[in-house]
Amino acid sequence: MSAPTALSPATTQTFRTLEPTSGVKRRVLLGVDHLPALARGCALFGGGGGGDPTVGLLMAREAIQNHGPVPLVDLDDLPADGLVLPCGYVGAPTVLREKLQNGWEGRRLVEEVESLFGRSVVAIMPIEIGGANGMVPLNWAARLRLPYVDADGMGRAFPTIPQMTMNLAGVPSTPCVIVDERMNTLVVRTGDVAWTEHLLRTAVSAFGGAASGAMYVMTVATARAATVRRSVSRALNLGSAVLLGNGDPVAALVSETDAIELIRGKVVEVARETSGRFVRGSAVISDPAGNRLLRLEIQNEFLVALEEGYVQASVPDIITVIDLHTGEPIVTERLRFGQQVSVVSFPVDPAWRTAAGLALTGPAAFGYDVPYVPVEMIHARPI
Amino acid sequence: MSAPTALSPATTQTFRTLEPTSGVKRRVLLGVDHLPALARGCALFGGGGGGDPTVGLLMAREAIQNHGPVPLVDLDDLPADGLVLPCGYVGAPTVLREKLQNGWEGRRLVEEVESLFGRSVVAIMPIEIGGANGMVPLNWAARLRLPYVDADGMGRAFPTIPQMTMNLAGVPSTPCVIVDERMNTLVVRTGDVAWTEHLLRTAVSAFGGAASGAMYVMTVATARAATVRRSVSRALNLGSAVLLGNGDPVAALVSETDAIELIRGKVVEVARETSGRFVRGSAVISDPAGNRLLRLEIQNEFLVALEEGYVQASVPDIITVIDLHTGEPIVTERLRFGQQVSVVSFPVDPAWRTAAGLALTGPAAFGYDVPYVPVEMIHARPI
Repeated sequence: MSAPTALSPATTQTFRTLEPTSGVKRRVLLGVDHLPALARGCALFGGGGGGDPTVGLLMAREAIQNHGPVPLVDLDDLPADGLVLPCGYVGAPTVLREKLQNGWEGRRLVEEVESLFGRSVVAIMPIEIGGANGMVPLNWAARLRLPYVDADGMGRAFPTIPQMTMNLAGVPSTPCVIVDERMNTLVVRTGDVAWTEHLLRTAVSAFGGAASGAMYVMTVATARAATVRRSVSRALNLGSAVLLGNGDPVAALVSETDAIELIRGKVVEVARETSGRFVRGSAVISDPAGNRLLRLEIQNEFLVALEEGYVQASVPDIITVIDLHTGEPIVTERLRFGQQVSVVSFPVDPAWRTAAGLALTGPAAFGYDVPYVPVEMIHARPI
Repeated sequence: MSAPTALSPATTQTFRTLEPTSGVKRRVLLGVDHLPALARGCALFGGGGGGDPTVGLLMAREAIQNHGPVPLVDLDDLPADGLVLPCGYVGAPTVLREKLQNGWEGRRLVEEVESLFGRSVVAIMPIEIGGANGMVPLNWAARLRLPYVDADGMGRAFPTIPQMTMNLAGVPSTPCVIVDERMNTLVVRTGDVAWTEHLLRTAVSAFGGAASGAMYVMTVATARAATVRRSVSRALNLGSAVLLGNGDPVAALVSETDAIELIRGKVVEVARETSGRFVRGSAVISDPAGNRLLRLEIQNEFLVALEEGYVQASVPDIITVIDLHTGEPIVTERLRFGQQVSVVSFPVDPAWRTAAGLALTGPAAFGYDVPYVPVEMIHARPI
């Protein structure tokens, strides 16, 4: 991974102004100087999953250098009847680093979607902000000179297609399109998002484990009520807090954002296996005095944090492990004994805290028999 | 399998007039009385593969009873710029009997293809005449009240999508469409028929081993030079010869068609295994006196017939094993010790005897290191 690049105060200032301000058009040009902070923020939102944003960062940087900066736009500032293209990488995170995209997959996706829907795509939106997918579609936006929507479909990273807010809002997942780096293209139509997931996973495997996809295509008007709004700005702010927090990036994160630190210490145990397309296992972090042990349950992402049998945070809230030496989030497949880390948790978008949201992404959806309590409530009460 | 149904002489007469007659419009209405002969002919063209036509026969019979007979039309009698829909069942033959089609898959295929190509489908064509696929699309033609083209893409049965005459003629295999009985739909675009084959097989497996597909969609003008012409009439004639040949159906076949009998006797050995999606193995047939042994090499279909090391017939010519008691062809997966059979071979369509045709379907394409000699030449010379 590339070393953190310091942001100039001016650049930082630019996206600090992205915080909701009523009556003001929030329009920012994403240039190459924003990319390190955005990548860091996407990694923080990955919750240990979603893949490393580095490849996406490199491709976005080249595209922005060649094609110019990308407007980051709020859905309120786009024409209501235009199409939003929720898109990203589909496949195993590790394959993204080995089987590179050709860079123009987004054009094929846009062509196919415009032909299927008979209207124009007006903006590119990441399907998930967490991990690599917060960056991958930015490359396409730059090359196609389309704006990047300040929203996504997860507000973090999740492993499956049904786990998107568009599904909660009743937006059909199909017709969806996937394309590989040879421009082989597949259009899928189903009546049921479980079939979409099944057919796409199988097709991605036939493509060699990696593909680019667009799904839940919708109008801007629909997207306004079916997405996690302003998640790209939020990732920029989080990433910026960490990059600027010299000395103690985690302290900066906790003081400037809604992040909650669960423990700081050393990884003393990692039990992990990769079975099928999932990384499963657990890890234990001990504080320096050895008085506290925090156990993290892993399925691609960090899903549940437990201390003495009590839940300290759980899905759908975001649990992220940060390397104290580099300030970089550590993905679940790279966690190892001896790392000095901080474990932080962020409140997830309220859409996932509804009954319907929890049915798709709560602890029980991943097989854990624990009730969900919002992370800020757990830590507001005296333990 | 249903018992053979005797055809009335009048019915037989009807399709006997289908033989090419210059200047005469060849237009026949396929009614329920034609179906047993057509199914038998398709089974004979299957060469031991392509699946049992019975399910297709039953569905076509119901559809014709409900929607009326289907015009069998020559490509010369269709508008040159209309679309021909080459279509059929894609998957393991045995699954077709267990996971039934809903019957309306053809409508979904036509809708999708008309939307993709922006013009009308004017006729339904079987992708392969051999086995189940000679019958399956007839059900769709009846329900959609579209004519059935007197042609197909193989002139027999072959296991893969590249092995179609449209591929030889340079017609693109995609965009192709597959749909399952739930109407889940997939559209595939590739630049290479090998990728089409790979992606379709994977998708069919995701659908549960069975789907309906349309591929190599083309205009009537293109189809005239890219298909095996009049193969549906030829199947009707073959099937009729067998059904009417009371006492000795094989003798009737040999005397009335270009079939060549290779041996008549008993199955004395079958070695067979089903690995992946292929049935592989061999069988030996002995004449009653025990003087001659004919060995058949099997890969889904009967591919090579050998006697004392000499090739008696081979792909792409058709090798079919007929049960002497019932007159029915025996598919490779049902061949067993003790059956009384006749082994016959038919010359394949000349398209497959070209260098390009043999590269796709000759003995070497299936891994046999023997030269191809047309079956009628092998048996014209003194042995």
